[in-house]
Amino acid sequence: MEQTATKVSVTELEDFCHAALRKCGVEEAGARLSANVLVTTDAFGVFTHGTKLLRGYVRRLQAGGIRADAVPRVEREGPAWAILDGQSGLGMVTSVLAMNKAIEKAKTAGVGYAGARNSCHFGAAGYYALMAARADMIGLAMANDYPSMAVLGARKAVLGTNPFAYAVPAGREPPIFLDIASSTVAGGKVRIAQMHRETVPDTWMVDTNGVPTTNPFLYPHAAFLLPFAGHKGYGLAMMIEHLAGILTGTGAMYDLVNWVDHDPSLATHHGGAFLAFNVAAITSLDAFKDRVDQLIRDIHETPKADGVDRLYVPGEMEWDRHRRAVAQGIDLPEDVVASLRELAELLDIAAPWLGKG
Amino acid sequence: MEQTATKVSVTELEDFCHAALRKCGVEEAGARLSANVLVTTDAFGVFTHGTKLLRGYVRRLQAGGIRADAVPRVEREGPAWAILDGQSGLGMVTSVLAMNKAIEKAKTAGVGYAGARNSCHFGAAGYYALMAARADMIGLAMANDYPSMAVLGARKAVLGTNPFAYAVPAGREPPIFLDIASSTVAGGKVRIAQMHRETVPDTWMVDTNGVPTTNPFLYPHAAFLLPFAGHKGYGLAMMIEHLAGILTGTGAMYDLVNWVDHDPSLATHHGGAFLAFNVAAITSLDAFKDRVDQLIRDIHETPKADGVDRLYVPGEMEWDRHRRAVAQGIDLPEDVVASLRELAELLDIAAPWLGKG
Repeated sequence: MEQTATKVSVTELEDFCHAALRKCGVEEAGARLSANVLVTTDAFGVFTHGTKLLRGYVRRLQAGGIRADAVPRVEREGPAWAILDGQSGLGMVTSVLAMNKAIEKAKTAGVGYAGARNSCHFGAAGYYALMAARADMIGLAMANDYPSMAVLGARKAVLGTNPFAYAVPAGREPPIFLDIASSTVAGGKVRIAQMHRETVPDTWMVDTNGVPTTNPFLYPHAAFLLPFAGHKGYGLAMMIEHLAGILTGTGAMYDLVNWVDHDPSLATHHGGAFLAFNVAAITSLDAFKDRVDQLIRDIHETPKADGVDRLYVPGEMEWDRHRRAVAQGIDLPEDVVASLRELAELLDIAAPWLGKG
Repeated sequence: MEQTATKVSVTELEDFCHAALRKCGVEEAGARLSANVLVTTDAFGVFTHGTKLLRGYVRRLQAGGIRADAVPRVEREGPAWAILDGQSGLGMVTSVLAMNKAIEKAKTAGVGYAGARNSCHFGAAGYYALMAARADMIGLAMANDYPSMAVLGARKAVLGTNPFAYAVPAGREPPIFLDIASSTVAGGKVRIAQMHRETVPDTWMVDTNGVPTTNPFLYPHAAFLLPFAGHKGYGLAMMIEHLAGILTGTGAMYDLVNWVDHDPSLATHHGGAFLAFNVAAITSLDAFKDRVDQLIRDIHETPKADGVDRLYVPGEMEWDRHRRAVAQGIDLPEDVVASLRELAELLDIAAPWLGKG
């Protein structure tokens, strides 16, 4: 099914998200930065993890599962690490605080790890990794989630589609970055197939018999995503379960609550892990950046197969979209528009670009 | 082709590898630990990365590309990090030293990163991650390598099949651990297909036109491995290129030398990255281990598809094999035996289990 697009500027969209969060009682700074996380993700073209998620966050904010008045706090810390308790506030607020803490630790110790417990779903992991890159550090960001991913042979989900992201600062080029789910695809892609009433490839999910299925409507109650590359995606998700879930004390697997489908008055207990490597502490920052730029050029100049115009480094497609979004506005797909329109009505927010004055 | 097995005890095999390295001038401790890395990997059943590699290391030791008398040294360090220069010695020696340094840093700082430059091929990454788990820490280990992996659309390799491993300490259970290449399969698997004169799946490699090929004999001069799960494996390899290659100062991509096929008198300049998270500094070690054990039980007790007896956590198959190997000896596949027999002749080492007294 063809998607019709609605055009909106980055500023208008951020103001809209900010207004929605403020109407739910979120304080000014938290509303502003959460809006920035979601809109930046849309600007990268990752519409499954951008402003479309706001409707679900608002549902939990209104029911109390996400606490609008939460003040995340550093629970304990050491020379190169900290554990933060998100106090069941917005995942974006807790995660930005945690990555800033990892960066702060890396400034003095060279490397910093910040774990977040009692967080919530944090949008797209890549945003937090890029915070480190903006501080001239290599950044890693990951989170666990309620189980929706099986392994081959299982009739039930065992782990979340735990996301993993990293970013590397370059010199003349924008940061290299990658943001991936541990599953073949993110759950949001199955929800899009539901919306379009399309089947999905049989490598995406298994049903409750542990058998591959192409029916998107079985998800998430009676079908479970599969990890990418079999044991590799499963293994990555398992690592994240430990760094983001068990090490932070938030828990793992079914200790969490499903932020989309479960009672919105319940705290979700997501965990996050954030790492920063302070390049300048470890080596010459200029030499590092020059070498990263050179690597990017080497990839670009690699001989290409017939019909291939360009070889991309990780994140480059997203930066291309981001530049267009900032210059020309974001073309929001219809499912995102529908979700935002629902919010505009619910919270009575003026948004001319949604046809609501 | 059926492989016939030769049975050898862990001790006999370690003594053999130790003797070979001593005959090449490697000092006692380095020869002993390198033997342990390789034999442990065979005991895990990962024969592509165990003692089979010794023949190639000996070739470089004899030609000077690996320096038998190298003394790796800490080049510079900070509270939570260190950079080691391997001085072109054995990759196993430099990597064990680096992981020990990461563990030492994590003891005081909570988290430790050690980067190694001027190292060589280090065998299997999992060994080093498991060193951290034995010290009750979460360990990560990775390395870059000479390019042998293309990306879709490229007519040429751009990155190594950069390996990634982690390990997590458990309580009553052995550590969870994963050791993967960034490619769909490791290059060693293509070499086995060459030996057996079998074709390979068309998802493993592209040829010099950037087109998938099933001919193993094109590898590595005219065919290149593909990353697992497309942009996900490519992205992981790229992260490793920065943490193990550029951040350590050893370089990236074609800065390295192919340790198998290039002039054995040349240093290879591999880089490695080793991370340790000191669980006891960050949270209760007992509570952490209990929760890991519980997670393992939860995976085991997950309802299974028809015909599936058991769901494994990462590393569990390898531990099963390891227990059998220690109790009953290792069944070495024929390609490994052939390689070791060649070494026994070359270096005149007695090995009754090879039929050489």
